[in-house]
Amino acid sequence: MMTVQRLDIADARILIAGARAKAEEIGVPMCIAITDEGGNLIAFERMDGGKVTSTIIAIDKSYTASGAKKATHEYGEVSQPGKPAYGIASAIGGRLMVVGGGLPVIVDGAVVGGIGISSGTPGQDQEVAQAGIDAFLAQL
Amino acid sequence: MMTVQRLDIADARILIAGARAKAEEIGVPMCIAITDEGGNLIAFERMDGGKVTSTIIAIDKSYTASGAKKATHEYGEVSQPGKPAYGIASAIGGRLMVVGGGLPVIVDGAVVGGIGISSGTPGQDQEVAQAGIDAFLAQL
Amino acid sequence: MMTVQRLDIADARILIAGARAKAEEIGVPMCIAITDEGGNLIAFERMDGGKVTSTIIAIDKSYTASGAKKATHEYGEVSQPGKPAYGIASAIGGRLMVVGGGLPVIVDGAVVGGIGISSGTPGQDQEVAQAGIDAFLAQL
Amino acid sequence: MMTVQRLDIADARILIAGARAKAEEIGVPMCIAITDEGGNLIAFERMDGGKVTSTIIAIDKSYTASGAKKATHEYGEVSQPGKPAYGIASAIGGRLMVVGGGLPVIVDGAVVGGIGISSGTPGQDQEVAQAGIDAFLAQL
Repeated sequence: MMTVQRLDIADARILIAGARAKAEEIGVPMCIAITDEGGNLIAFERMDGGKVTSTIIAIDKSYTASGAKKATHEYGEVSQPGKPAYGIASAIGGRLMVVGGGLPVIVDGAVVGGIGISSGTPGQDQEVAQAGIDAFLAQL
Repeated sequence: MMTVQRLDIADARILIAGARAKAEEIGVPMCIAITDEGGNLIAFERMDGGKVTSTIIAIDKSYTASGAKKATHEYGEVSQPGKPAYGIASAIGGRLMVVGGGLPVIVDGAVVGGIGISSGTPGQDQEVAQAGIDAFLAQL
Repeated sequence: MMTVQRLDIADARILIAGARAKAEEIGVPMCIAITDEGGNLIAFERMDGGKVTSTIIAIDKSYTASGAKKATHEYGEVSQPGKPAYGIASAIGGRLMVVGGGLPVIVDGAVVGGIGISSGTPGQDQEVAQAGIDAFLAQL
Repeated sequence: MMTVQRLDIADARILIAGARAKAEEIGVPMCIAITDEGGNLIAFERMDGGKVTSTIIAIDKSYTASGAKKATHEYGEVSQPGKPAYGIASAIGGRLMVVGGGLPVIVDGAVVGGIGISSGTPGQDQEVAQAGIDAFLAQL
């Protein structure tokens, strides 16, 4: 038997609040998704004005980051044409996201979940995801 | 051109809070999903202990209720063997839910969104969905 | 943060061995799938002669049992025409299995994973799943 | 009528054991999938620490290698922008994998199955897949 730590709903709300504060600061309404360490959705919010397509993209970014224990923008780098992971973007029915904005949530060296953001540029999405993580880690 | 009324994220949180209060009262941790009038997800929470399979089922119940402007348990009745809508349960890749727990949110006679609940019995899910709607309508 | 217990690969092998022994005893080559508490696959074996279609069915039975914390044959009972969960069989793209042969693995009252069996009759599948669980619990 | 040779479950276990030994040697917990010559899953193991997303990716790499009778990294080469198989990565709902780590298992010039590895870099995945094949061929 293994013992694993994972985010609970209270943690998920803190991650969302931290991401939302940054999204408001930069003026981009975002879709914000939080998954547990198994890649399953815990919480989601689409801010007013967030993109409809981004509901699924945010969830899949979070799924990728928590399930693969890797930031989605890192996949973006290694999956460029000519790079080793080229083509991975369409894996798992297209759920494997290689666009920035998905980050694993790491506590004591272990991935306990993920956060996925979508509606802005990939750089904005990643910045907002990081703000969610910063808010979460600051109160641990 | 049409003007449509739809739930915003503040409304979605009120719906979730109302549903969660009832879920806690009856002691069943639930997955709670809120969609807009276009069937697209606005907000979601999986209470600690909510079922993994219910993450998708709750979203699809809410999608069905808002998109079809009909409670999912009503589809359950008309889709029984020999009834007119028999077989509808597997429509849309199985997203069309005919199990109780999905309710349209109606304001001034218009469907402005939906709520979908899953993890309990269909009767419990429906009761919790109704509690979310009651809390929302009470503060309008 | 939540702390959860889940099956590891060593546990999965014991579950498979227990199921396989029963399958050999009754003379039905089976597909045997083990998932963790989040519904994700840990291990799988198709015995020589196991059905090709059953590879997916066994995995989905195990996914259902662990993710929904319920035996698939219990879903079979409550999803009959006229019953409350009628129509649930096509949920989650058809992954929600209501045919017997999927059982949650429960330790100290908590679901730590699931086992799914397919290739025989639903009764045989359920018997073989139970044998896997019995073998696992006997050595804890 | 055709007679085909294919891997059985005993062969699949040898392939998995060979791959697992290499994975332990390089210190990367892997998902390991074995398919038959028809692309259907025979056996699977997720080593403790293997990635959740890699459960599906490993299976799809093995499916691709056995079904297409070609190593997945070879598809990676011919599917680069401007190359003849560009775009093949999203075929079959994304199941056609062009990332290294899937190898056909060949005996007497005939493809008898495949092995798919995921959780490391594509180079590590391919190395571990080859170790599985080497262990299998060594005992024939």
